Amino acid sequence: MTGAGVLHGVGLGPGDPELVTVRAARLVGAAGIVAYFAKTGRDSHARSIARPYLRPDCEEIALAYPMTTERPFYTSEYVEALRSFYEESAERLAKPLSEGRDVALLCEGDPMFYGSFMHLFVRLEARFRIEICAGVSGMSGCFAAARAPMTWGDDTLTVVPATLDEAGLERRLAEADAAVVMKLGGNFPKLRRVLTRLGLVERAIYVERGTMEGEKVVPFREKLDDAAPYFAMVLAPGQGRRP
Amino acid sequence: MTGAGVLHGVGLGPGDPELVTVRAARLVGAAGIVAYFAKTGRDSHARSIARPYLRPDCEEIALAYPMTTERPFYTSEYVEALRSFYEESAERLAKPLSEGRDVALLCEGDPMFYGSFMHLFVRLEARFRIEICAGVSGMSGCFAAARAPMTWGDDTLTVVPATLDEAGLERRLAEADAAVVMKLGGNFPKLRRVLTRLGLVERAIYVERGTMEGEKVVPFREKLDDAAPYFAMVLAPGQGRRP
Repeated sequence: MTGAGVLHGVGLGPGDPELVTVRAARLVGAAGIVAYFAKTGRDSHARSIARPYLRPDCEEIALAYPMTTERPFYTSEYVEALRSFYEESAERLAKPLSEGRDVALLCEGDPMFYGSFMHLFVRLEARFRIEICAGVSGMSGCFAAARAPMTWGDDTLTVVPATLDEAGLERRLAEADAAVVMKLGGNFPKLRRVLTRLGLVERAIYVERGTMEGEKVVPFREKLDDAAPYFAMVLAPGQGRRP
Repeated sequence: MTGAGVLHGVGLGPGDPELVTVRAARLVGAAGIVAYFAKTGRDSHARSIARPYLRPDCEEIALAYPMTTERPFYTSEYVEALRSFYEESAERLAKPLSEGRDVALLCEGDPMFYGSFMHLFVRLEARFRIEICAGVSGMSGCFAAARAPMTWGDDTLTVVPATLDEAGLERRLAEADAAVVMKLGGNFPKLRRVLTRLGLVERAIYVERGTMEGEKVVPFREKLDDAAPYFAMVLAPGQGRRP
């Protein structure tokens, strides 16, 4: 690794550029090369959070997903396409790193929490020095947006992707004291059925674009339609000991 | 509330002052009055994180817990003492707020996630304007410190306090794909028994003082003694889909 560059996995928080950490702002501001994941044909959300901190002359490496994450297909072709994509992305970063240049990989939220960064981290950590800069998670942004104290005393928190099958989702949420449901999108009707059966509708809060322009916070009982972006969340705050 | 001051619940992240958000640094730097929780006779951890950003002339309100949190007693006296403490603390902040002065309440980690701030939030939110500034959670700091990708694909994450009874702790951890165990302290031997029975010892990582001076990251199988501060954590990273 002697002479090689450093890869920084830089968590940028939930969306509001002011919720970037002081370190992340410093790393982005110093970066000669930034990389980011993006959906094909769309702006990178991570890049848009980092924009105020970017050097005007920085090089950019856009890593465009081969398909949308809105409709995950659990077929072997899908997994294979993703694998190739992550392999190629790792090699695209390996090139400047091998030449001794540092790269800042811009990550929404916290890099080690459901982050695409992790797929490059495991592929590159044996070859290059990698530094991880923790960020405010998307869910913490939603707690603040919803003004929802989430976990009291001995509450457990369960974070569950709505992509689970209905029985699995119900089993996890039935056990939870406090819960965060992520990856909504087309899974919303299924989630509504589960929350209704568990009696969680009164307590749940729907949060869309937490901490960002267009932020929407709606008590779940008032969320009458099933339209929800993939990155919206539903929170069920805990009810633990509250002296 | 006309003319009253604003209470800011300011998340300061896991401990490293550079993991404070740009907004938190701005709020703390502008604050004429800061308040913080502290254990009696000890420095406030939140204050120590905020120190580089404090105005030299700011007024400080130290809210000293009536007893240590290392040994929680679930007696009615304990709950009553805490209730009085939170009531008094709320009134101490209400005074300057009523006089039209803003107060920044310094919070370790994320204010809405197991935060003492929440106890003042629920007592003051009807009387004053309260703004919440999300922070990097202590657990996100530990993910980065441990260089541990935590949640892959459809993994669920379970956050569980080690203060639960042994059966409850085991039941929650048996269900989890990825897990974070908080509030260790004297609960460590119980946690060790549970992790051993569940076959999680090989996967688990012990993290003490994550992101701070004296940080310690130890594979659980190499953690042979039972000494653990209350705020240390054990992580069990998920093993979900990893194309």
